[in-house]
Amino acid sequence: MIKEGDTVHLKSKKDSFFVIVKQNEEFSTHKGTIKFNDIIGKNYGDTVLTHKGEEFLILKPTLYELIMFGIKRHTQIIYPKDSAYITLKLGLTSGMKVLESGIGSGGLTIVMANALNPDGRIYAYEKEEKFLKTAMKNLQLAKLDHIVVPHLQDLSEPIEEKDFDAAFIDVREPWLYIENVKKVLKRGAPIGFLVPTTNQIVEVLKELKRLDFIDIEVEEILQRHYKPVPDRLRPEDRMVAHTGYLIFAKNG
Amino acid sequence: MIKEGDTVHLKSKKDSFFVIVKQNEEFSTHKGTIKFNDIIGKNYGDTVLTHKGEEFLILKPTLYELIMFGIKRHTQIIYPKDSAYITLKLGLTSGMKVLESGIGSGGLTIVMANALNPDGRIYAYEKEEKFLKTAMKNLQLAKLDHIVVPHLQDLSEPIEEKDFDAAFIDVREPWLYIENVKKVLKRGAPIGFLVPTTNQIVEVLKELKRLDFIDIEVEEILQRHYKPVPDRLRPEDRMVAHTGYLIFAKNG
Amino acid sequence: MIKEGDTVHLKSKKDSFFVIVKQNEEFSTHKGTIKFNDIIGKNYGDTVLTHKGEEFLILKPTLYELIMFGIKRHTQIIYPKDSAYITLKLGLTSGMKVLESGIGSGGLTIVMANALNPDGRIYAYEKEEKFLKTAMKNLQLAKLDHIVVPHLQDLSEPIEEKDFDAAFIDVREPWLYIENVKKVLKRGAPIGFLVPTTNQIVEVLKELKRLDFIDIEVEEILQRHYKPVPDRLRPEDRMVAHTGYLIFAKNG
Amino acid sequence: MIKEGDTVHLKSKKDSFFVIVKQNEEFSTHKGTIKFNDIIGKNYGDTVLTHKGEEFLILKPTLYELIMFGIKRHTQIIYPKDSAYITLKLGLTSGMKVLESGIGSGGLTIVMANALNPDGRIYAYEKEEKFLKTAMKNLQLAKLDHIVVPHLQDLSEPIEEKDFDAAFIDVREPWLYIENVKKVLKRGAPIGFLVPTTNQIVEVLKELKRLDFIDIEVEEILQRHYKPVPDRLRPEDRMVAHTGYLIFAKNG
Repeated sequence: MIKEGDTVHLKSKKDSFFVIVKQNEEFSTHKGTIKFNDIIGKNYGDTVLTHKGEEFLILKPTLYELIMFGIKRHTQIIYPKDSAYITLKLGLTSGMKVLESGIGSGGLTIVMANALNPDGRIYAYEKEEKFLKTAMKNLQLAKLDHIVVPHLQDLSEPIEEKDFDAAFIDVREPWLYIENVKKVLKRGAPIGFLVPTTNQIVEVLKELKRLDFIDIEVEEILQRHYKPVPDRLRPEDRMVAHTGYLIFAKNG
Repeated sequence: MIKEGDTVHLKSKKDSFFVIVKQNEEFSTHKGTIKFNDIIGKNYGDTVLTHKGEEFLILKPTLYELIMFGIKRHTQIIYPKDSAYITLKLGLTSGMKVLESGIGSGGLTIVMANALNPDGRIYAYEKEEKFLKTAMKNLQLAKLDHIVVPHLQDLSEPIEEKDFDAAFIDVREPWLYIENVKKVLKRGAPIGFLVPTTNQIVEVLKELKRLDFIDIEVEEILQRHYKPVPDRLRPEDRMVAHTGYLIFAKNG
Repeated sequence: MIKEGDTVHLKSKKDSFFVIVKQNEEFSTHKGTIKFNDIIGKNYGDTVLTHKGEEFLILKPTLYELIMFGIKRHTQIIYPKDSAYITLKLGLTSGMKVLESGIGSGGLTIVMANALNPDGRIYAYEKEEKFLKTAMKNLQLAKLDHIVVPHLQDLSEPIEEKDFDAAFIDVREPWLYIENVKKVLKRGAPIGFLVPTTNQIVEVLKELKRLDFIDIEVEEILQRHYKPVPDRLRPEDRMVAHTGYLIFAKNG
Repeated sequence: MIKEGDTVHLKSKKDSFFVIVKQNEEFSTHKGTIKFNDIIGKNYGDTVLTHKGEEFLILKPTLYELIMFGIKRHTQIIYPKDSAYITLKLGLTSGMKVLESGIGSGGLTIVMANALNPDGRIYAYEKEEKFLKTAMKNLQLAKLDHIVVPHLQDLSEPIEEKDFDAAFIDVREPWLYIENVKKVLKRGAPIGFLVPTTNQIVEVLKELKRLDFIDIEVEEILQRHYKPVPDRLRPEDRMVAHTGYLIFAKNG
C-alpha cells in the first residue's frame, strides 16, 4: 500500500513522471492535476485520474528508472550499463565495506548500495557539499541511504576508515590518490576507476603498476538499442558511443 | 577467518584456483599440494605454501569471479556484462518476488539473488533436474541459496505462485510462455528475455505486442577489453562479438 | 588550372562550400560574394577573396567530400564506410562489367565507377526517372559519368545486358529480383546487397540458398570517431549505430 | 581466356587456392594434381579436374581475395575494411600523385593503385628491401604495378618528388616524418595515418597541430560478421576488435 514519502512512477500512454507522494499536496501535468491523497492507500498497479479525467497507472519505480529519470542530477551520472557492471566486477555483496570517491549524484552509489544490502557499507568521500547532499537525498529516494556513510573530504586528506573490501574512484585525476587508497584497502581487494580519456587510463595504469597492483584490466561497455518493430527489426540509427573507460585491479 | 566450507581464491603469479575448503583434505596444483588445514583459521589476504614451497595468496572470490571461474557449468552461462545489466534493468531489490526460467547453471540467478538480498525471492522454474541441482549448488557457493526457491517444471505447466514483481525468461522458445507468465505478473511489472537470434527477437516482440506489454526495448551489451600497457595502450585484437540480445517490457 | 565546369571546394576557417565554377556568374556566402571569374585560371591551393575581403582556400574536392557534401541527394546515400568496402569486396577493377540497382543518388555509383576506371562499366537500373537524372548529374560532378550506362527500368523487367562480372542490389525487396539477376551474372561472379533490417537479411539469405549461391556472408561496418584532442583523447559521445547490413555471395 | 601468368582462384566445395598459371607446370592439392596446361585457354567460370577426378571451379580472383588470400605477406596487412575506407577518404582517383610509406606487403598499395588507375601514381617509400620486393610482386599479381614507383628509403631522407596530392603514412613513429612530408604535399592535400595505439595517436595529433594541419579526424572502422543462417540469424561469436586507429588531416 502506497504511503506518504514513497516515490511513485505515474505513467500514461505518453508520459512518465517520478514523484514523491506528499499528503495534502498535488502534482501538475499538462493533462491535469493529480491529488496525492488520491494515491495514498492505493497499491502499485492501480490507476489514478487527473482533474481532467486523464488516467495514470501508479507504478513502483525500478532502481533503473530511479537512476535514469527519478534522481536529481548535478553531474553527468554513471550509466546503468556501467554501474551495473562495476558493481558486479567489484563483487559487492552484503557485509562488504566499500570506499567510493567522488559520489557525484549518487547514480553508481545507489546500485552499489543495493548489492551491499543489508550489512555492507559504502564510505563516500566527496569534497563538494552540494553533491554529497543531493546524492544522499537520491539514496533516500531509493531507500538505500542506511548503507552509505558520507564524508565531506577528498582523498588527498588522510582516510580514517581502514580495511576496505573494495574501492571505486571516479575523480578527474585518480592517479593522485591511489597510493593513499592502497593503505586502507585489504590485500587482494579490488579497486575500480572510470575515466573518460585514454590519457587518464595511461596515468592510472602507470600508478597501478608502480604500486604493485595485480590483475589490471581496462575495458569499456557499449550498449546498442534496436527499434522494437517485429517486421522491420533493426538497430536504432544512433547510439551513445562513449561514457567512460573502466579500469579494474587488485591490491597485490 | 576462513573456515571449512568457505570458497577461496588461491592466486599465484600465474595461476588462479577457486576451491571449497574441506578439513583434512588437500588440493593439488602443478606447483605442489596445498593442505586445506593450512588455510583454515587464516584470513583473506594471507598466504599459504604448497609442499614444494610455492606461495599462493588466499583471496575471497568476488561474485564476478565465482560466476566466471568458480561455478560448475552445464550450459553456456549468461555473461556478467549481461547479468549485471539485466538485474539493474529489472530493478531487483530486497523484498521483490521474481520469476526465473530456465535457471541454467545459475550464473544470472546468483547476480539477481545478490540484488534481492535479504528479503527478496526468486522462484526458479527449470525442467532439467541436473541443471536445477547444479545451479542450487552454485548458489550455495555464493551463499545466496536462501533467496532461491527451485521448481522442477517448465512454464507450460500452471504456475502456482502469483503476484510476481519481475520475471526473466531464458529458454529456446520464450514466446510460448509469455501468456502464462503474464497471468502471474503484477500490472506494470518488468519482464526480460535473452535470445541469441534475431528470429527469436521477432517472435518475442510479436507476442509482447499481442498481449499489450508496454515499454518494449531491445538492446545488446558489448564489452571491449584493452591491453593494460601504459605506453602502448590499445584494444585487444579480438573480442566476444555476441552473447545474446536482451528484450525488456512491462506488463501493461 | 581551374576552368569553367570544374567543381571546387571553397574553404575558410569555419565554412566549406562545394560548387561548380560558371563563367561570369558568382556565388554568395554569408561572408560576401565570390566571382567565379576570380577562380578560373587559378590553381588548387590558391586563395580567393569575397567582396568583403574574406579569404577562401580553393581546394579540389576529394571523392569522399563530393559524396558526403557535394552531391545532390533525393535519397539516403550509402555512407563511404559502406560504399568503399562494397567496392573492394566486389573486387571492382578496370575492365569489369557491373550491374547496379537502384542507383539512388549515385553515392555508391561514384565510388564503384572510380574503381572501374577507365575500362569498366556500370549498367545502372533505376525505375525513378528523377533519381536516375540526379545520379547522372552527380557522376558528372565526379567526372565519372562515362563509366555508367543508365537504364530507366527495374529488375522485374527482362535485363538485356548479359555476362556481368559483379552486381549490387539496393532496393526494398531485393529477394524478388535475385533469380533474374542470376541469369545475367557470370558463374563465380560476386553479388552484394545492402538492407536495413534483419527481416530483409532473412529473405535474401533464403533466396540465395535456394538459387545455389555460394560463399554467403553477412556483415556490418561500424565507424567510431574520436575527439582529436591530444591531451584529452576520447571517442565522440555519440555515433551512427546503423546504416545497413551488407550481404555478399557468389553465383555458384 | 586464361593465359600463362594469370592469377586464378581454384575453388572446390571446401577449398580455395590462389595460384599463378605457369605453362607445363602443375599444382598439387590434397585432392590431386592440376595441370596448368588444362587451365590455359579456358574461361573464368569453367571447371578443371585433378588427376583424381576432383572438380575445381576456375574463378578470377577479386582484388579483395588477392589481398586477403593471394598475396605473400611479410608483415601484418592493412585489412580491406580499413584500406577501402582510407582510399576513399583520401579521395584517390586517376591523375593523382600519392606518397605512401611504408609499403609493407602492399595490401593497401593495391587498393590505392586500383583507385588511381590509369593515370595516377604512388611513390612508395620503404626502407626494407625485402618488403619492397614482395610488395611489387604482389602488385604484379594484381596487374597494378605500373601505378607504383618504388623508393628504397625512409622519410627521414630528403624526398625528391614534389607536389603530392595525398599521402599515407604507416610506420612506427609517423610523427618524426610529418614535417618532411608537409614540404612535398600540396596545400589542402589530405594525409592519412594508421597507428595501433592511443599513445601514437597523441603524438601524431600534437605534430599535426604544431604544423597547422586542418580538418583533423581520428576514427576506427569495425567489422562484425553474422552467421548466414536464415532461421537462426545472429552475429558470429567472436570478432576482430582492433586493427588500427585511422587519422586524417589536410595540409592547412
